[in-house]
Amino acid sequence: MTPLTSGFHPPYYAVIFSNQRTEMDAGYGDMAARMLALAAQQPGYLGVDSVRNAEGSGITVSYWRTLDDIAAWRRHTEHTEARHAGRAQWYRDFRVRIAKVEREYGWQIQDGTADPAA
Amino acid sequence: MTPLTSGFHPPYYAVIFSNQRTEMDAGYGDMAARMLALAAQQPGYLGVDSVRNAEGSGITVSYWRTLDDIAAWRRHTEHTEARHAGRAQWYRDFRVRIAKVEREYGWQIQDGTADPAA
Repeated sequence: MTPLTSGFHPPYYAVIFSNQRTEMDAGYGDMAARMLALAAQQPGYLGVDSVRNAEGSGITVSYWRTLDDIAAWRRHTEHTEARHAGRAQWYRDFRVRIAKVEREYGWQIQDGTADPAA
Repeated sequence: MTPLTSGFHPPYYAVIFSNQRTEMDAGYGDMAARMLALAAQQPGYLGVDSVRNAEGSGITVSYWRTLDDIAAWRRHTEHTEARHAGRAQWYRDFRVRIAKVEREYGWQIQDGTADPAA
């Protein structure tokens, strides 16, 4: 997850996907990589930050221009199939939140200066 | 990060903190634990999900009832000091987003049923 996504000019939307994996692999890595690549091709996609730890806890936040863009990606056939497989075998627990990003700021060690909403 | 936070009744607010750690430890773990405990005592705090991987990439999402609650926590003296120390030594790169959660839903393997916005 480097570099961090940034500079999307609020307001825009975040899909906050927090989850706990099962022990089952069964093609999970391939599916996850495919979904990240496919999401990046969708209209309104801005970027994604994603982290998973060794205990299988994960948070993926994807960023989108509008709620309609999120809804269209949700309806995408291959994404729908992946979600169904996720419920069937890959995730023990998950939570999805749709949120409107109102403010963004950050900082990088390279310049040491605050970087308000690029 | 088990169990996942849930059931906060939108609308509420999320602080999405994505970050990349430096190599420096220097009390980071103690500070992080202290900040999580202190945040949980603040008015309007709802919960937090946090994950960091072995490469030092982290995403912490804290949930709050109102923007004023977030602003008050931001002004908290000990939190302010921790943020300054974070910029000085612990984080190579970070991004903070303030977002209004409009929808929440989830699923748990225990019952196998969708759990729309509790």
